[in-house]
Amino acid sequence: MNGKSTIIVHSGDIDKIYSALIIANGSLSMGMDVSLYFTFWGLERLKKGELEGGPLSKKNMLGLGKMMIKHKMKNANVRPLEDLLEDFVELGGKILACDMTMDVMGIDQKELRNDIISDYCAVGTYIKEAKESDITLFI
Amino acid sequence: MNGKSTIIVHSGDIDKIYSALIIANGSLSMGMDVSLYFTFWGLERLKKGELEGGPLSKKNMLGLGKMMIKHKMKNANVRPLEDLLEDFVELGGKILACDMTMDVMGIDQKELRNDIISDYCAVGTYIKEAKESDITLFI
Amino acid sequence: MNGKSTIIVHSGDIDKIYSALIIANGSLSMGMDVSLYFTFWGLERLKKGELEGGPLSKKNMLGLGKMMIKHKMKNANVRPLEDLLEDFVELGGKILACDMTMDVMGIDQKELRNDIISDYCAVGTYIKEAKESDITLFI
Repeated sequence: MNGKSTIIVHSGDIDKIYSALIIANGSLSMGMDVSLYFTFWGLERLKKGELEGGPLSKKNMLGLGKMMIKHKMKNANVRPLEDLLEDFVELGGKILACDMTMDVMGIDQKELRNDIISDYCAVGTYIKEAKESDITLFI
Repeated sequence: MNGKSTIIVHSGDIDKIYSALIIANGSLSMGMDVSLYFTFWGLERLKKGELEGGPLSKKNMLGLGKMMIKHKMKNANVRPLEDLLEDFVELGGKILACDMTMDVMGIDQKELRNDIISDYCAVGTYIKEAKESDITLFI
Repeated sequence: MNGKSTIIVHSGDIDKIYSALIIANGSLSMGMDVSLYFTFWGLERLKKGELEGGPLSKKNMLGLGKMMIKHKMKNANVRPLEDLLEDFVELGGKILACDMTMDVMGIDQKELRNDIISDYCAVGTYIKEAKESDITLFI
């Protein structure tokens, strides 16, 4: 057993999504289990087409335009968010979608990226995952 | 022993207070101990009349007016913040108020909701609580 | 063994840097090991002259000017950030700088406060530190 990381992704800010995925993939590559629990603005990013673009794209990194940060990330050889998310799923990471947020924000399951979401669930599922984790973060 | 969650509530944003209380009450309902350590903008929310309204009410959920989010929460059958906080206290959750924040912000004990605060304390108390916790978050 | 705290300092907001250092120093003074992993806007604060001033100074505490908060902190006998950071290093705290952020933001090692940084490293180092920690936070 190599331990476990459970991260709440509450923010929809591009820089914080990067942090969440980099920590998540780092944990996976060191043999840990990882669960990402997407809620509030984080869950909005799991709508089809919203991870790197879409209506949310106005919410950028502080003081840096979205194009600018993408450019900087690319120049520094950081993989795009879409690739990081794909790696996460391929490496066996688990994506949990907060069903309360879906109710509150009026998000239909059809709008979300069903193919990569492991479970639609409530806070009880998060608690169970987090309780057995070595690393717990709220991002 | 069912474990323990200790959460720092640093933010005063309505959406983050919701997240903190939902995680806290979820932990309690699964038999865990929970301590919420209110500091900075979070502590401002424990002033009388400030949890859901008052001068702070301008600090709303990003892009959503306060009325809008309350309406959405209600439509989704999410209990109001005031009820969530009441549940938290009734289920045995512990509320800790950061005394340094009181000094810095010039908050008098009389301004705070004395009836639900378990202790006015400093970072040492937080560390003790967090050290023995399974889930530690900064919100 | 008295336990360990590992904190990611992602934000560059003055109030959050205060929280990070106060928790860090509180942990050290209770005999714990502490690692602070500075990334994104947090790392910008480790540029020479940026902790309490410099170009970043416009990013202040919500609704409070920078001078105002410094004044309030001083009146409440809270030590300045610079002193808190010095205490942290003297008490044996470890400062880790995220090398990916340096690439992305175009930050040269010469711009950073080399004298207090223990290591320039990537997420793998953070995971190792966090995995063995009792308290893990993302600030």
